[in-house]
Amino acid sequence: MKTYEIIKKKRDKLSLKPDEISEFVNGYVSGIVSDYQMSALLMAIYLNGMDDDETVSLTEVMANSGERINLDEFLNITVDKHSTGGVGDKTTLIVAPIVASLGCVVAKMSGRGLGFTGGTVDKLSSIPGYRLDLNKREFLDVVRKTNISVISQTDSLTPADKKIYALRDVTATVESIPLIASSVMSKKIATGSKSIVLDVKFGSGAFMKEKLSAEILAEKMIKIGKSFGRNIAAVLTNMDMPLGLAVGNNLEVIEAVKLLKGEKIPDLYDECVTLASVMLNLSKQIPLNKAKELVENSIQSGAAFKKFREWIVAQGGDISYIDNTNKFDVSKYRVEVLSENTGYISKMNTEQIGICASELGAGRKKYNDKVDLSAGIIIDKKTGDYVRQGDRLCTLYTNQSNNLSGVRNNYISALEFSVNKPILTPTIYKTIF
Amino acid sequence: MKTYEIIKKKRDKLSLKPDEISEFVNGYVSGIVSDYQMSALLMAIYLNGMDDDETVSLTEVMANSGERINLDEFLNITVDKHSTGGVGDKTTLIVAPIVASLGCVVAKMSGRGLGFTGGTVDKLSSIPGYRLDLNKREFLDVVRKTNISVISQTDSLTPADKKIYALRDVTATVESIPLIASSVMSKKIATGSKSIVLDVKFGSGAFMKEKLSAEILAEKMIKIGKSFGRNIAAVLTNMDMPLGLAVGNNLEVIEAVKLLKGEKIPDLYDECVTLASVMLNLSKQIPLNKAKELVENSIQSGAAFKKFREWIVAQGGDISYIDNTNKFDVSKYRVEVLSENTGYISKMNTEQIGICASELGAGRKKYNDKVDLSAGIIIDKKTGDYVRQGDRLCTLYTNQSNNLSGVRNNYISALEFSVNKPILTPTIYKTIF
Repeated sequence: MKTYEIIKKKRDKLSLKPDEISEFVNGYVSGIVSDYQMSALLMAIYLNGMDDDETVSLTEVMANSGERINLDEFLNITVDKHSTGGVGDKTTLIVAPIVASLGCVVAKMSGRGLGFTGGTVDKLSSIPGYRLDLNKREFLDVVRKTNISVISQTDSLTPADKKIYALRDVTATVESIPLIASSVMSKKIATGSKSIVLDVKFGSGAFMKEKLSAEILAEKMIKIGKSFGRNIAAVLTNMDMPLGLAVGNNLEVIEAVKLLKGEKIPDLYDECVTLASVMLNLSKQIPLNKAKELVENSIQSGAAFKKFREWIVAQGGDISYIDNTNKFDVSKYRVEVLSENTGYISKMNTEQIGICASELGAGRKKYNDKVDLSAGIIIDKKTGDYVRQGDRLCTLYTNQSNNLSGVRNNYISALEFSVNKPILTPTIYKTIF
Repeated sequence: MKTYEIIKKKRDKLSLKPDEISEFVNGYVSGIVSDYQMSALLMAIYLNGMDDDETVSLTEVMANSGERINLDEFLNITVDKHSTGGVGDKTTLIVAPIVASLGCVVAKMSGRGLGFTGGTVDKLSSIPGYRLDLNKREFLDVVRKTNISVISQTDSLTPADKKIYALRDVTATVESIPLIASSVMSKKIATGSKSIVLDVKFGSGAFMKEKLSAEILAEKMIKIGKSFGRNIAAVLTNMDMPLGLAVGNNLEVIEAVKLLKGEKIPDLYDECVTLASVMLNLSKQIPLNKAKELVENSIQSGAAFKKFREWIVAQGGDISYIDNTNKFDVSKYRVEVLSENTGYISKMNTEQIGICASELGAGRKKYNDKVDLSAGIIIDKKTGDYVRQGDRLCTLYTNQSNNLSGVRNNYISALEFSVNKPILTPTIYKTIF
């Protein structure tokens, strides 16, 4: 009866109390509350929203639904980063070793990619030997040794969130700000870092297409983080074009290595420097301009790359692949996509490009699909570039030849051209504390 | 994928097309669409509504989900009546024989009572021998012989509505006008009568407490009926006090017999005359004032009672109970409730009175609960009556003694008293064609 009354309350736009939220969610995990009652509540939340107190309560119940990682031994210098998901987003591979080289502690659990976005876990899995499945003791040992470890989210982490997310995915209740915010934050709270930097993306390759929605989501997550006593900030970043030039698993690892070795891939470099600076600022109270200087030095001096190597070795990865990225598997088919137009690229439908990469094998449609680690796209021309007919726009990498011309056409139709040079929107829109 | 897209469309306040509604509902009945997807859609419909075309489509799909009764052999004089549910509503037992005595054909399927409202089926089941479970052939034979038959809704009637209703009942999606309208009308369309009179109740003992909501529901059902080519009208009636003086199964049969024998129980008589007149008007195109005259004559002349007897006999009922209602079982416990106040009764919380009757055993909380056929309440004083301290307000009838004082207190607290005589709202608010 209480279950019914809780659905009714949210249906009637009333606020749920903490004990109502915990009763409902815990009841769902234990099977007392059925899928159909949870989906009715989720649709009511989608349409009627949740206030800050409700969102904090939901986050807390989900964070406490499984194992929580205790990082107290590392004092206050633990720092986590979360991206709301984009195309070509390999920033974790870069910023984690940068801040670890500067004395911060990164003890991170990452997720798989789904749909048009890639996941850090899939990228790391393309390094032969790299162990994503360390147990808790091994995980903390690596952190103690190197200041950094990144593993796959375990099943025991926030099981309530996992069960609810799976239901949202089939009932059209994913794109809800309080539900997204509580889902993200429950995992961040459960994994225990004192400081959290959120990379909240907007634009054609983000879940939030609109800057305003991204900002509302960021504010909501910051409020949640603060209510749990975390140092938290959000960097709002532009996803109107893929980040960097590589999209795909080992292709992105190779690009990350290049950047850590000093190559300044424009938008990717700016975004990594900003994210790492904010991470340093939050976790070590270093002023932002000073933090930025330290971050850039860490890259230029090779300290970040050295930390990256240490980390990969500590986690079982074959370092010869990092030292010589030519060793990575190269896909069987490589198709150059040539421009049919002459002019400036004025727009890229980045979600569509992400789908192209996914269809080449780099991503997964369903949670248990396998990904092709060498599939993906290397981009030659991005928004703002001048292109002549016949110039190469990108190269498609894949091990399956069945739909290559379809993907090629989709890639071309993802681009718009203009006669005049378009005004580029900056990669970093703003940082909210 | 289509299932997901349909939920998303309704979530985003878009109209669903007929083929989308039929795919979803038929998929639900066959098990392709899951309970949790249907409940997400139901909550989206609850909160975002459905336009007239969508409601008609939903009605049609549900009406066609099971067996349909063909009444073509009775030409255009078939007439059905539906009440949205109230307390003490025994009108079917009265109006059906009246209009049948005047040459109309009533081939009716009725439902069980649930919650605080009684059902015609439960009332009829208190007549020993009366068969509610006639098969289709037997049902039509009784109609051919006597112009009237009332049986229980079969499982093969609108199975989609049954499955959806059961889900609405546990997901807080019952009180939605398009869902109520399509549920009621799908059954009326499937059972085939050419004319339909809806008794749409409002007030403290109705599902719709507000007159305006009742009117919106009535208009919606009329639109649906017309789109299926039916003659249809709605009588909006007041449920701010129980209808008549008896609440309970055999108690209401006894009251119906009294009225058919000529006793003018004020509000009950008015409501039955109005409903029967509109039924006659729709099915035989007799002007309302003339219809009213024929209806009153049918009662006064005994023709209606004669038809009632024919009907009960044809359906296997022991007529000696009708001829001598003292034969009906009387409950073991009878408790007189005496007034603690002096003054006019100014308000009756009729839902609360319905719950009292249900708790005495007259109703059911869950679909499969058994009802006590002799339990209920005989009311002495209603809104507008002057009462002295110690006067009898009602008598409670029950076979279970465990919660008698609780029910007594609830009955008393359902009444409000005033010093001045309250202004009574009329039983019939209006008729909409």
